[in-house]
Amino acid sequence: MKQIVKELSMFIEKDGQRFIKEGKALIQTKRIEKKEGKLIEEEVFYNPAQIINRDLTVLVIDTFQENRQPITILDALSASGLRSVRFAQEIQNVKEIYANDLSLASLALIDENIKLNNVSNVKIYNMDANKLMKEDIKFDVIDLDPYGTVCPFLDSAIHSCDDSLLCITCTDSRVLCGPDTQKCFAQYGTARTKMNCFAENGLRTLLYTISQAAGRLGKAIKPLISFYGEFYLRVFVHVTKDKVQTHKLFSQIGNLFFCQSCQSFHVYPYGQKEDKGYKINKKPIPSKCEVCGSSFKINGPVWIDEINNIEFVKKMLTNLETRHTHFQTFDQIQGKLTGIINQNEVSSNPYSYNMTYLASNLKCTNISKKEIFAGFQSLGFKIAQCYLQVDLYKTNAPNQAIYDIIKTWKKIKYGENYLKSIQENTPAYTILTSETTHTPDFTFKPTFNSAKMFYPNLEGYGPKSKAIQRKIVELEEDQAIKKQKID
Amino acid sequence: MKQIVKELSMFIEKDGQRFIKEGKALIQTKRIEKKEGKLIEEEVFYNPAQIINRDLTVLVIDTFQENRQPITILDALSASGLRSVRFAQEIQNVKEIYANDLSLASLALIDENIKLNNVSNVKIYNMDANKLMKEDIKFDVIDLDPYGTVCPFLDSAIHSCDDSLLCITCTDSRVLCGPDTQKCFAQYGTARTKMNCFAENGLRTLLYTISQAAGRLGKAIKPLISFYGEFYLRVFVHVTKDKVQTHKLFSQIGNLFFCQSCQSFHVYPYGQKEDKGYKINKKPIPSKCEVCGSSFKINGPVWIDEINNIEFVKKMLTNLETRHTHFQTFDQIQGKLTGIINQNEVSSNPYSYNMTYLASNLKCTNISKKEIFAGFQSLGFKIAQCYLQVDLYKTNAPNQAIYDIIKTWKKIKYGENYLKSIQENTPAYTILTSETTHTPDFTFKPTFNSAKMFYPNLEGYGPKSKAIQRKIVELEEDQAIKKQKID
Repeated sequence: MKQIVKELSMFIEKDGQRFIKEGKALIQTKRIEKKEGKLIEEEVFYNPAQIINRDLTVLVIDTFQENRQPITILDALSASGLRSVRFAQEIQNVKEIYANDLSLASLALIDENIKLNNVSNVKIYNMDANKLMKEDIKFDVIDLDPYGTVCPFLDSAIHSCDDSLLCITCTDSRVLCGPDTQKCFAQYGTARTKMNCFAENGLRTLLYTISQAAGRLGKAIKPLISFYGEFYLRVFVHVTKDKVQTHKLFSQIGNLFFCQSCQSFHVYPYGQKEDKGYKINKKPIPSKCEVCGSSFKINGPVWIDEINNIEFVKKMLTNLETRHTHFQTFDQIQGKLTGIINQNEVSSNPYSYNMTYLASNLKCTNISKKEIFAGFQSLGFKIAQCYLQVDLYKTNAPNQAIYDIIKTWKKIKYGENYLKSIQENTPAYTILTSETTHTPDFTFKPTFNSAKMFYPNLEGYGPKSKAIQRKIVELEEDQAIKKQKID
Repeated sequence: MKQIVKELSMFIEKDGQRFIKEGKALIQTKRIEKKEGKLIEEEVFYNPAQIINRDLTVLVIDTFQENRQPITILDALSASGLRSVRFAQEIQNVKEIYANDLSLASLALIDENIKLNNVSNVKIYNMDANKLMKEDIKFDVIDLDPYGTVCPFLDSAIHSCDDSLLCITCTDSRVLCGPDTQKCFAQYGTARTKMNCFAENGLRTLLYTISQAAGRLGKAIKPLISFYGEFYLRVFVHVTKDKVQTHKLFSQIGNLFFCQSCQSFHVYPYGQKEDKGYKINKKPIPSKCEVCGSSFKINGPVWIDEINNIEFVKKMLTNLETRHTHFQTFDQIQGKLTGIINQNEVSSNPYSYNMTYLASNLKCTNISKKEIFAGFQSLGFKIAQCYLQVDLYKTNAPNQAIYDIIKTWKKIKYGENYLKSIQENTPAYTILTSETTHTPDFTFKPTFNSAKMFYPNLEGYGPKSKAIQRKIVELEEDQAIKKQKID
């Protein structure tokens, strides 16, 4: 843990107690109370891996509030109140913050953290978050940061949104991105195939589920920024009560016809825009992979529209560099935002390609980034690195052009040996022996913008157990320490 | 309206006031109250077209309660309280009925109808139905009978269900079955194509939406009986809190690949059962119609599992014929239940074919029902009439066999003229000139069970405006009658 403390946060000692400083807030990690002759010690398991999530949230809300009346924020699952006390000190134009938690232990901690930070506009609530969100209070911002999935809170949250910002975390990345596809279908309604760009697929699955909950209540969503943090997914969506906008859903939701042999794919929207509104898609349905001849699997339904709003992200970057230079994760966030802006020309193409994996599919060693860009750009296609995962590229090139680039590269590098150790009747053989219709020029001088988008994980990075534990230190008796989860 | 009154309901005069008798209940249609010098007259617009809906509901609940502890029923949108007072008198083993309505005018009416029927276990509530259903009360039965769509109430209702019966009406058949496909996608999340069996498609769309709301909360649904009443859809589902059952959803939801030229189709589930649970479907994706060569459209996602539970329906029929012979719609319900039982052998085949339409597609006049059954059964296929719409047949025969039957029939009837007035390069030409692989024998003696499943619509049949209107009869002033919708 030493490295994290040094790099990302700061412990402060005061009156013999230890506090953590994050952003502009100071929070208590321990709280000791004497009760019925026993010392009750409550401890917040502070998770430094989530600093970037909280910094990002402060920045998103502080950008969303611009040109609005003073805003009301609901921190629906507040735990220690850390988010609320940060919002109160780091976001402009805040009228009121509701810090809500069902756990009584949380309430005491939130209360102490409010006093510690001397903030006046944070109100504490002790309600079931779902009931609070059904209370017909209009929140400008709702932050939902649950353990696991957001699903149980989704409908109530949408109910409370009307021209509002909804900030959603899901920590069940095993379900949204990982092997638990059965649970993914049951809970999120999306059939997921195994693919390289699993982070984007997880985000598109989550956005699909949110869009459906919204559509049912006559509301539309617009994703402002989507973020993947390895063990969690985080999306920020603008929810509006706009029935006409919900009609657009017909073209924003679709299925991905995905080839598990060569990772080629086609995005097939359910609907298409016509003169008289949105109608069912009349385009031919792709059934077999045109690159390797394998059958497609159906990955969907998923959100196939933009997952970031470029204008909003640009404003975020400006605000980061002017108002939020104090962030502990300033560099990481600056890198991600720049990465999103850099991929803007190809961001309307959902999903991406892992060129290393595609090359290994054809049994050739890795193509350099420069050669990749040269190959695509010499053919007139656009390409950019994906900000979500290392080694992924977004492009407007069709599947066949992408494989033509790798094939051509292999033929140049391997000469007559390019079919060596490739077995007949395999997808690789089919691809390598099929006609090449694109001729990339690897001597082309490519242009690309760079941003440092990926940082190594810190020591101790990963999901933590629930935020608050209660240790009962029985002083009068045997001094044994019993741990009991209360949250 | 005379015909309806005569056939389906009965007006009763008592103390100068007029009452309606439905089932075992008596209800007031008008209520007059003097207030601030004005006579306030409230009137329930009694809709006889819904008698079958209410009779069916009584029968379903009375079947569901068997072998259970005394049940608690929520009549969530009670209006006049008619359902509640019927439930109290016609269903066995009822502990308590919550008659809830947000409208104050309703409350007074419910109260008077409770007194009129002298029932003791109906409690009146005056809450927003969504808030009441979030109150953590476990209801054994929830009846949701809204105007329009059920969507705004769905999630709260599922929240309140745990081993419960959920009874749902949607009166927005224009959205679920009709031309408003844009709104259908926005609200129900399903892309619908135009097809002959629109009633079944509407029910499968609704069941899909319910299953998704349930899955998100870790709950599974089992449809007990599904009903289509022209201007409304009615489904009864058993909701259980069973995460393992929710995994089954992967194979219960799918897309329909539908040919709008010849009405052929393939049902493609998202998932399939394997040794280690449900996995993504690995079967080839149908892209072109094998019968006429046209492109498929994607109709979905929809519920593709059974929409009726045969064991439950058989119990309903027994209970109808023993305990509910007093129903005004006894014959209609008996016909529908018998129809569902008769189609049991083919009920696992979603969707159905309109043989008249298919024949007209090939420009031949109608085949008789006897010839249809002979054709299918002579080839070893099963066939049954669909209980939802006239002229529709369910079968386990593949698309090609179905068209082979019609082609063969046309060739027999029309002889050498069978291609007369069929233009080349049309789907009909493709079908009629393609090879026939099945040779049906129309002299085969078919077997089929008959049930009178379709009754002509009664005069005045159709959706009514909202249930309660308030007429303000201003006696002191100008005697003018103003109508003001209050519900």
